[in-house]
Amino acid sequence: MLTDAAALEAYAWDNTGVRMRPQAAALAVDAAGVAAALACCAQHNVPVTPRGAGTGNVGGALALHGGVILSTQRMTRIVDVDPADRVAVVEPGVINATLQQAAGEHGLFWPPAPSSARACSIGGNLAMGAAGPNSLRYGGARNWTLSLEAALADGSLIHTGSRAAKDVAGFDLTSLLVGSEGTLGIITRATLKLAPKPTHERLMRAAFASVDAAAQAVSAIMASGEAPGALEIMDAACLDLLREAGMAIPEGARALLLAQAAGDAQSCALQADALRDQLLAHNPLELFVAADEQEAKRAWEARYKLSPALKKLSPKRVNEDIVVPVSQLPALFDGVAQIAARWELPCANFGHAGDGNIHVNFLVDPADPAQTEKIAPALDQLFALVTRLEGSLTGEHGVGAMKRDYLTWQTGVPAWDWQRRIKQLFDPNGILNPGKIFSEDPRPRPHSVV
Amino acid sequence: MLTDAAALEAYAWDNTGVRMRPQAAALAVDAAGVAAALACCAQHNVPVTPRGAGTGNVGGALALHGGVILSTQRMTRIVDVDPADRVAVVEPGVINATLQQAAGEHGLFWPPAPSSARACSIGGNLAMGAAGPNSLRYGGARNWTLSLEAALADGSLIHTGSRAAKDVAGFDLTSLLVGSEGTLGIITRATLKLAPKPTHERLMRAAFASVDAAAQAVSAIMASGEAPGALEIMDAACLDLLREAGMAIPEGARALLLAQAAGDAQSCALQADALRDQLLAHNPLELFVAADEQEAKRAWEARYKLSPALKKLSPKRVNEDIVVPVSQLPALFDGVAQIAARWELPCANFGHAGDGNIHVNFLVDPADPAQTEKIAPALDQLFALVTRLEGSLTGEHGVGAMKRDYLTWQTGVPAWDWQRRIKQLFDPNGILNPGKIFSEDPRPRPHSVV
Repeated sequence: MLTDAAALEAYAWDNTGVRMRPQAAALAVDAAGVAAALACCAQHNVPVTPRGAGTGNVGGALALHGGVILSTQRMTRIVDVDPADRVAVVEPGVINATLQQAAGEHGLFWPPAPSSARACSIGGNLAMGAAGPNSLRYGGARNWTLSLEAALADGSLIHTGSRAAKDVAGFDLTSLLVGSEGTLGIITRATLKLAPKPTHERLMRAAFASVDAAAQAVSAIMASGEAPGALEIMDAACLDLLREAGMAIPEGARALLLAQAAGDAQSCALQADALRDQLLAHNPLELFVAADEQEAKRAWEARYKLSPALKKLSPKRVNEDIVVPVSQLPALFDGVAQIAARWELPCANFGHAGDGNIHVNFLVDPADPAQTEKIAPALDQLFALVTRLEGSLTGEHGVGAMKRDYLTWQTGVPAWDWQRRIKQLFDPNGILNPGKIFSEDPRPRPHSVV
Repeated sequence: MLTDAAALEAYAWDNTGVRMRPQAAALAVDAAGVAAALACCAQHNVPVTPRGAGTGNVGGALALHGGVILSTQRMTRIVDVDPADRVAVVEPGVINATLQQAAGEHGLFWPPAPSSARACSIGGNLAMGAAGPNSLRYGGARNWTLSLEAALADGSLIHTGSRAAKDVAGFDLTSLLVGSEGTLGIITRATLKLAPKPTHERLMRAAFASVDAAAQAVSAIMASGEAPGALEIMDAACLDLLREAGMAIPEGARALLLAQAAGDAQSCALQADALRDQLLAHNPLELFVAADEQEAKRAWEARYKLSPALKKLSPKRVNEDIVVPVSQLPALFDGVAQIAARWELPCANFGHAGDGNIHVNFLVDPADPAQTEKIAPALDQLFALVTRLEGSLTGEHGVGAMKRDYLTWQTGVPAWDWQRRIKQLFDPNGILNPGKIFSEDPRPRPHSVV
């Protein structure tokens, strides 16, 4: 248990740039410890904010109401990796990349792998419903979790699911806990389903004259045959940033797609041929097919350099991860451009185009109040647009503190209210991650939208 | 609303063979009607048993506590099939095969497809968490449901999820409702995710001298590469039945595997080669590779004829759908054989071997009390075995009335109790499908197990 102000600084931040120092941090080493800490905090009515690796984007690990940070960072045991059942059993503090390495020794992987895989923890991944580029073909964290152990607000432990691949014995508490952002319980152990790792990948990069042309190509690819291993998009603002960072981006290009075929040697080659044909059918300015792993790595760098480049340009940018049905991607990009133009906000968009999951980044200088005051109405319009297109406020970051005021826009008040009642059932005193997911005062929906 | 005794006979049965006549049957034509019926029953505290097509195996659609059957069989609209977004929007009374046909016109399908696909309804499929052979590669109903509209016990309607492929906005009420067996609400509309239908399939049938050899082959296949399109097993008792039904089964064969490669022309051919090699490596007595669709159809018939053949032999057989981790299949078959021998119960086992989901059938003559009294201790031992092997009581049939006494064996009392509390939250007066999933008096676990 840490209470020293300096030590607590390490538990005051996440990837939002907001700092919020807790009153104490408890570093649990096992499930019993997590449960005991919760029982103690329940007794004294102290707020508990669960924390994995602190890489979240929506303030989920920030102690909004003070109290105790309960960190699972020391629970780092990989209990079991079983290639016969394709199952891994892990503690929540295991880093995503560490699990991938352990599974990789058996030719397996755990499909949820955010771009922060080298830093983020499995516990955080599960709490927030993390995904990443693989979700295009494999789906998100809920699809790859078989069973959980979790500590609840009353200090008890429950076990959900089983080690079996199919299981419909009673309500799906596993899916209820995954993505509940630590508001219902704290995951203390997870049995994860693993998938065979594709042995071959083939990356191609296509440059387009407009984001609309790129979005059309994405819709066409997704409406035909098996999903590629990854299908990522970057818009004109992203390309300008990459040019500034010294990367060679084709002249005139205003959108870039990264498309990756994946499978065994032969199925990968087949998919690569099909992908290339589909991209060529949409008249790219340039199509580059990586000849080998080195070239692929360099092409992927464009995608991985984006977040740091954006962060450098605009340390406190507003980074959303909205999702629309893939046929609505052109409408989304058009609407976002109108919103950015109307509020004169610099905006850069990239993300997992194949499943319609786009990271919309408003590059706001926090030192300039004239800019920050435009953010609220711009976000109002963005979320109204997304819900009008039958999409989701968040595909992989979660709601946290950042989107709680908007949640009813997607869910409607009745479903939101049932979620609140479930929260009250599991945590009647509201000690578990207070202030996350649920707003006391949902934001009114604007009358006019783009 | 039907109250005539003769008319109500049509709502008194399901696939369990048990008959239980309700006091009335309400045939809803739209969501507002379902909600209004629930509001009315809530007001008068009348039990409501939701009913799809009545093909369930666990008594889910039987009016155990009398009251009203609420049938969705007249809600048969396919509202939308959208090939661009790969989404179908359907009412709950749509028959599974009807949806498959509508989706098939666009080269798509909905992966959950039980062997009763020509009779069962989507509402029932979702309520029970149905699956079928495709789940080996695609997973069950929860993975293929994006959004639901449901009527709750208080007569309100809620909407869950979105049309987006990724969605972590708040708690996963969609997964909570799927598999809740009509105890939390009645699904009135579903937005389903569709998959591209494999254009090519290649079926092969391998005969083995023992079920253990077949189970070893299954484990090996599942531990290597991509899952086949289907991987089904039949044991010696099943083969005897098929022989009696006049099918040509190789002499000396005591287990049969049906393995199906699936994909586009080339990937299917590749997978078929790999499957053939893996099967040959486990010394089958015979390996038959279907040359064309006609031969494949005939080979599949063996699988599809089993249920009717068993039903004819033993009309009120006890049909379980337990699941074990795939590496435990040999231990499962061994244990089931011991249980059947100990209680001298005829027993036939078949099912979705690839994901460890085996239909264990005790062929009990209901006219013979000496046999029926052995069923309870035999099931005790079966479920104790399954939970010891870290499996599940049910992979696709659900809990219903038939397995409710055993649910705590898998979940433990704490997780079971949280499920009960969620049930009480959504349905405080217990009018929704009473007697299903939850037992007032869970069965004590036996001290000695196989």
